[in-house]
Amino acid sequence: MEPSTDPRTPFELSTDTLHPSLTDPVLSSMNLLNEVAHRFPDAISFAPGRPCEDFFAVEDIHRHLRTFCRYLTEERGLTTAQMDRTLCQYGPTNGIIQELVARNLAADEGMDVDPATVVMTVGFQEALFLVLRALRTDERDVLLAVEPAYVGLTGAARLLDLPVRPVAGAAATGVDLDDLVAQVRRARAAGLRPRACYLVPDFANPSGAGIGLADRHRLLALADEHDILLLEDNPYGLFHGHRERLPTLKALDRARRVIYLGSFAKTVLPGARVGYAVADQPVRDPATGRTAPLAAHLSKIKSMLTVNTSPIAQAVVGGKLIEHGFDLADANARARERYARNLDQVLDGLARRFRSSAGAPHTAGIEWNTPTGGFFVVLTVPFTVDDDLLEHSARRYGVLWTPMCHFYSGAGGDRQLRLSVSLVTEDEIEEGLDRLAALVAERCSRPGDRPAARSTR
Amino acid sequence: MEPSTDPRTPFELSTDTLHPSLTDPVLSSMNLLNEVAHRFPDAISFAPGRPCEDFFAVEDIHRHLRTFCRYLTEERGLTTAQMDRTLCQYGPTNGIIQELVARNLAADEGMDVDPATVVMTVGFQEALFLVLRALRTDERDVLLAVEPAYVGLTGAARLLDLPVRPVAGAAATGVDLDDLVAQVRRARAAGLRPRACYLVPDFANPSGAGIGLADRHRLLALADEHDILLLEDNPYGLFHGHRERLPTLKALDRARRVIYLGSFAKTVLPGARVGYAVADQPVRDPATGRTAPLAAHLSKIKSMLTVNTSPIAQAVVGGKLIEHGFDLADANARARERYARNLDQVLDGLARRFRSSAGAPHTAGIEWNTPTGGFFVVLTVPFTVDDDLLEHSARRYGVLWTPMCHFYSGAGGDRQLRLSVSLVTEDEIEEGLDRLAALVAERCSRPGDRPAARSTR
Repeated sequence: MEPSTDPRTPFELSTDTLHPSLTDPVLSSMNLLNEVAHRFPDAISFAPGRPCEDFFAVEDIHRHLRTFCRYLTEERGLTTAQMDRTLCQYGPTNGIIQELVARNLAADEGMDVDPATVVMTVGFQEALFLVLRALRTDERDVLLAVEPAYVGLTGAARLLDLPVRPVAGAAATGVDLDDLVAQVRRARAAGLRPRACYLVPDFANPSGAGIGLADRHRLLALADEHDILLLEDNPYGLFHGHRERLPTLKALDRARRVIYLGSFAKTVLPGARVGYAVADQPVRDPATGRTAPLAAHLSKIKSMLTVNTSPIAQAVVGGKLIEHGFDLADANARARERYARNLDQVLDGLARRFRSSAGAPHTAGIEWNTPTGGFFVVLTVPFTVDDDLLEHSARRYGVLWTPMCHFYSGAGGDRQLRLSVSLVTEDEIEEGLDRLAALVAERCSRPGDRPAARSTR
Repeated sequence: MEPSTDPRTPFELSTDTLHPSLTDPVLSSMNLLNEVAHRFPDAISFAPGRPCEDFFAVEDIHRHLRTFCRYLTEERGLTTAQMDRTLCQYGPTNGIIQELVARNLAADEGMDVDPATVVMTVGFQEALFLVLRALRTDERDVLLAVEPAYVGLTGAARLLDLPVRPVAGAAATGVDLDDLVAQVRRARAAGLRPRACYLVPDFANPSGAGIGLADRHRLLALADEHDILLLEDNPYGLFHGHRERLPTLKALDRARRVIYLGSFAKTVLPGARVGYAVADQPVRDPATGRTAPLAAHLSKIKSMLTVNTSPIAQAVVGGKLIEHGFDLADANARARERYARNLDQVLDGLARRFRSSAGAPHTAGIEWNTPTGGFFVVLTVPFTVDDDLLEHSARRYGVLWTPMCHFYSGAGGDRQLRLSVSLVTEDEIEEGLDRLAALVAERCSRPGDRPAARSTR
């Protein structure tokens, strides 16, 4: 009757009795990569896509909070008790700073957003999850995603048993529009419902690729023609290097085909964990004939997922927005400069190490793309890149990066690695690239592999 | 080719093409109740289960943050840069205050918890969602829940297409153990897999009922015998009125049958949105033969849901824990006193209004339970209680409460209402109960209804 007290037969679960996502490598890949970084703390790391830490300080949190509280009392006319309640009590599911976010989107993106179509979320990731939950009605629904794709997209879809069908992500143009149409048709022919295509139009993670203006217009037209939504993820748009910015898909969206998934992790503070969805699609309830914005439905899902986003965290973000007149492009001018300089240094460093002075490829099979902004560069090499090689690179050469194969659903990226430029110093970039070149030289000189590579330094 | 620019054919979604939970009343019930409250801001409200606001202030947030930062630098030896990074940067998925939570659970609950089995979450709600996601593998899995059940439980399960089977919640004993066993057997006989039973052993929301010590032991034995987990939700345990506390299920759990879902919303600050799961169940992977605590799997799910809980929000909670020597029972002494006084006043007030001096029922069909702690009292009346009556009560009498029918999956609670005592003042309680008595009197005097009720005041 009381086996619970018998120490010889301890109760145990099996992964067989847990959701299948838990044995899917995609859910472990972030942990696995973090674990390698943890074991080699002294390695130079081109791995994490985290923002530079020189621009963060705890004192900023205090200041942002005080700014936001002043805004509540002085501009919004709240009493001290109301202010205390706004930050400390449970808050509205949709959030408390949607007005401020709309002003930020007007300032930074030229977007005209109704705050009633904004849902504040626990980072981009929750915004994505809310949308995927809303769109996945049964096993016939599928998602399209430009590949290579962010692991957080693949993982969230996996949690919801929502298949992700890859769309070719052309290196030069960001997305292969013909393949997008082909994938929509193929899914429909198989009796499936392609609901949306996920993409990062600016300096994508992990590819660094971007989509040009003409293709943005074409994408919107295709979404309308083929009746799908576009999920626009835009964490790196403000870090556009030396070139002019392009308008976001959402800024060009006349037909409300775009759900915009915003993040303040790179532009304000990752530690706030504040993001949002702009979901202005009208949703009609056939039972009542009434429509409500999709945001209202996302809010219902959120109420059962996290109840509401911490108003303290929202206040931190709100305070920073107010301090900078809602202009995060301006607030991030130094960060943009830093990332642009790092990107230039990495691209120059790769050229110096892997290319002859004439500009021709130095080593057969070694090439890289040349993003004009963002955090990421993809290096292609003439040997297999996998987690074992990462382990070897960390142990033998003290340099970390990310195997691109993690970002492909099937085969793909197996001779590529992602270099993140956001968290490295000038010295680390030079030393790190030297170490990477030594790894490449070792691999290229192995019997059975391609011709040997030699660093130019 | 560009229908998106044609204003005559605007794109529209239909609720038919969104997840079915979005048309389930359960996901709208919280919004609906909040909406009534919003329309009648001057009504006296026995509706929300929110903590009293007299104990909150924004300055506490600043102090808690500074306390936590001192702990990081002085006790943990972090540099200022490391401290800045800990609060501002992305953090570990599991969280940054599991050690402090373990010390709190030792101090307040006598629980011996390994921090490696703790996952910090965006409130109780996310902890619950992580567990339900892990346990729901396919359409054969079902959850048991003591009914009436918290709407957040029913809603989260609905998001995951996880059916909830009710277990009778005996008013006197909190749970009908025979019915629990019967429900497990019935589910298995139907080819289903009852994975766990959700319950609130202390002063449940919405019933206010509690489970006695002997039944806690029996529950644990039954869970082991019938191979189910127990999901213990404990937001009100520290508000135990004038009586001694009982040990939590988790404190008595020798067989690791209990997943403990913790919340700091009532004991620290709702606005932090910080909760946690203690999930020490070993999970074996048959492919490798290795085991890891269930917490490690919950962490993988969380990494794709919210990435990590805001370290700023965790720091606020951590700071408060440190300031009070990890003893939240002590930190909440004033709050406990307040809630106990309010509960006494409401119970006395009901007796004065609805019961003769001899103690016998005054009005046929009017009764209420007598919880010894927590936030909630359930009043049973001899007429139908629904959202229309709530609207009438708000408009005509200026008093708000919660129809109990929202907490039942099928029929049930249709002549009951929940009174929350947490957010009302002494004066509001008296005036509010007068208004409620007037509503009851009106309803009881209607032709076809039961004999008229008269207030004793």
